[in-house]
Amino acid sequence: MQSKCVVVLSGGMDSCVATALAISQGYDVALLHLNYGQRTEKRELKAFNDIADYYKIDKKLVVDIGYLKDIGGSSLTDASRAVETGGVEKGKIPSTYVPFRNGNILSIAVSWSEVLGASAIFIGAVEEDSSGYPDCRELFYTKFNELLKAGLPDNESIQIATPLIHKSKADIVRLGVELNAPLHLTWSCYQADDEACGVCDSCRLRLRGFEQAGIKDPILYRPLSPL
Amino acid sequence: MQSKCVVVLSGGMDSCVATALAISQGYDVALLHLNYGQRTEKRELKAFNDIADYYKIDKKLVVDIGYLKDIGGSSLTDASRAVETGGVEKGKIPSTYVPFRNGNILSIAVSWSEVLGASAIFIGAVEEDSSGYPDCRELFYTKFNELLKAGLPDNESIQIATPLIHKSKADIVRLGVELNAPLHLTWSCYQADDEACGVCDSCRLRLRGFEQAGIKDPILYRPLSPL
Repeated sequence: MQSKCVVVLSGGMDSCVATALAISQGYDVALLHLNYGQRTEKRELKAFNDIADYYKIDKKLVVDIGYLKDIGGSSLTDASRAVETGGVEKGKIPSTYVPFRNGNILSIAVSWSEVLGASAIFIGAVEEDSSGYPDCRELFYTKFNELLKAGLPDNESIQIATPLIHKSKADIVRLGVELNAPLHLTWSCYQADDEACGVCDSCRLRLRGFEQAGIKDPILYRPLSPL
Repeated sequence: MQSKCVVVLSGGMDSCVATALAISQGYDVALLHLNYGQRTEKRELKAFNDIADYYKIDKKLVVDIGYLKDIGGSSLTDASRAVETGGVEKGKIPSTYVPFRNGNILSIAVSWSEVLGASAIFIGAVEEDSSGYPDCRELFYTKFNELLKAGLPDNESIQIATPLIHKSKADIVRLGVELNAPLHLTWSCYQADDEACGVCDSCRLRLRGFEQAGIKDPILYRPLSPL
């Protein structure tokens, strides 16, 4: 029987490539998406559904964890705080960090995986070439896997897979193109939902990745973006 | 300045005693409650609010994680499945297990703790004298603390405290009485919300604890309960 996995699919480039990888490895894929009151919630949900349709995957779960917006502490969920647009600063956690967001997301993925009988959870976390969020570090996922060994029923086994964790954004672009991932359907911008702003950390990292890979980013950006 | 902590307060006896302990240790306490579509959701929420009022704690957060009911896999959230009433069977995980529930709950507690600046999370998990849920084992909490060391910003530190993990239910009853915890306001029954059933695992464990402590349980039980 085909092994099942859950892919955490935000609708961004990285999670789209993680989906493509899980499919290429022969998994029977179920897709999980989270709405958490982030600025581009609706646009990301559209990207999620577009990518699911592209792959004809109907095992989908969309979970509302708007409590993360109520809890606050992030410019990504709080419109009164500004999102950084000056580029990633090494060693500094940007205001867009959502406290322990990935812990919340993985826990939901684990609950669903237990019920589905999935043996793996794919997440497109990137450590080096990223915004510097603590819950995107490889060690976090290593420890989460140890937690799962301790906290699941003894006859169950679920492994978190982070196939992109040490890749550069350029590597991810190249891998996506190689796997025919629908990068044109993805959305990465933190603050706009019609044309990407081109200046938030997420846009900058993405644009630089495409530039370094020598490939044109297929999505629309606002005119006069600095890259 | 007084250290802050978050207490996970379901409204049951164990979490009530965990609250009493956190207060007795001098913490500035914030209370977290989760609705997850369990059978006695409303009754547990009442117990939570009653206990908060008793202690005059106004820093409260109630989070709806009804997605756990949607995900399913448990008789506690699925009315079409029966709750065990024959007593705990050693080595067997009962149908009331909610897949990875405590991972979900702790993750929310961590997100809130980060924003509050709390340094500890109290949870009334009990390992031995319990229903045998894998996410109530001490090792699960040890590993969760390691996860927090890896997954939080480097300048933050949050510790999960499980002060009841190795206590018997009788010990917990005695400790609650000693600390003047409002055990009369707590609710433990898995299936009834007016008078406790007396026969579900949770009622049985509770009643045996009171019996062994030689103290009368102050809440109401249905007539003819077998203990």
